[in-house]
Amino acid sequence: MNDESCCSLSLDPEIKEQARRRLLSVRGHVDGVARMLEREDVYCVDVLKQISAIEGALKKVGDLVLRSHLNNHVVTAQQRGDTEAIVSELMEVLKYRK
Amino acid sequence: MNDESCCSLSLDPEIKEQARRRLLSVRGHVDGVARMLEREDVYCVDVLKQISAIEGALKKVGDLVLRSHLNNHVVTAQQRGDTEAIVSELMEVLKYRK
Amino acid sequence: MNDESCCSLSLDPEIKEQARRRLLSVRGHVDGVARMLEREDVYCVDVLKQISAIEGALKKVGDLVLRSHLNNHVVTAQQRGDTEAIVSELMEVLKYRK
Amino acid sequence: MNDESCCSLSLDPEIKEQARRRLLSVRGHVDGVARMLEREDVYCVDVLKQISAIEGALKKVGDLVLRSHLNNHVVTAQQRGDTEAIVSELMEVLKYRK
Repeated sequence: MNDESCCSLSLDPEIKEQARRRLLSVRGHVDGVARMLEREDVYCVDVLKQISAIEGALKKVGDLVLRSHLNNHVVTAQQRGDTEAIVSELMEVLKYRK
Repeated sequence: MNDESCCSLSLDPEIKEQARRRLLSVRGHVDGVARMLEREDVYCVDVLKQISAIEGALKKVGDLVLRSHLNNHVVTAQQRGDTEAIVSELMEVLKYRK
Repeated sequence: MNDESCCSLSLDPEIKEQARRRLLSVRGHVDGVARMLEREDVYCVDVLKQISAIEGALKKVGDLVLRSHLNNHVVTAQQRGDTEAIVSELMEVLKYRK
Repeated sequence: MNDESCCSLSLDPEIKEQARRRLLSVRGHVDGVARMLEREDVYCVDVLKQISAIEGALKKVGDLVLRSHLNNHVVTAQQRGDTEAIVSELMEVLKYRK
């Protein structure tokens, strides 16, 4: 997408704020695991569980943004006339989604 | 795993330090995306790409810890006699792995 | 989606035929692994690799159908007026996507 | 793994038979979806749901084989002296696991 379409297709302000707050919470979680790794005895599996929990929280932020993108930008692509660009870009993003 | 086996099976110190440093870098990345979400115009897909990148970095930390767990604790389970506990726990962790 | 919208939103015939042919190839692959499991000596990891290869092939069929769905039905949702249904359904499907 | 270690580390016969039977059921499911794609009206999302169901069934076969591999071959690696090979191979397989 070029810059122009980028800026007219900006993320819904409410979702943006929700995503930002969730990311701050994810940051806190990551920080907690980093501190856990300063302890002398840490069990590998406990670290793996915490990483999975963080991945789950990140996925929820992604879902929030993805749903907003679908609702606000993808369902209107035909009307705007940028179907091919919007769909290719979305397929690319979904490919790397965990 | 009970506490005793937990502590005798602690994460290799070198890996622990590597994982900790990588998590601090992940934290910085999460922080960057949170700040990106303070800007007026943010394109959904750019956020989704950043989240995928963070997920990829987290997965690498998980792989590091998982490989260390396999190398140091799983391959010796038969000798310790805790095969069933170690394998069940590992399968559970792998289930939630992205 | 109710039956009516289901039938007006049917899968593009060309994609349908491509997906069908790919699935027949996937079926052959599954069959091959089932036969491999009749042999006396089979190494676990070789089975796991084959299963991953089948999952990869299935994912490609899914991507084909998903791209077609996005191109033909999702980008026109606003015009049809079924945005909420189309997006909720898609998010649900993506949730279970590997 | 060389051929020799391959054959001494063969898949447990009972698990092999279970996996084989499950794969025959997966084959039937794949076949069913291929036939579904012969129908005139097929809704994309119904195909995507069926593909996810097949992926879920395949994952269960993979889990069965993986658990057996962990139980029978990975936990004994230290005793056999092939830790590095067994762990590297397992990490590689897990990388491609959906």
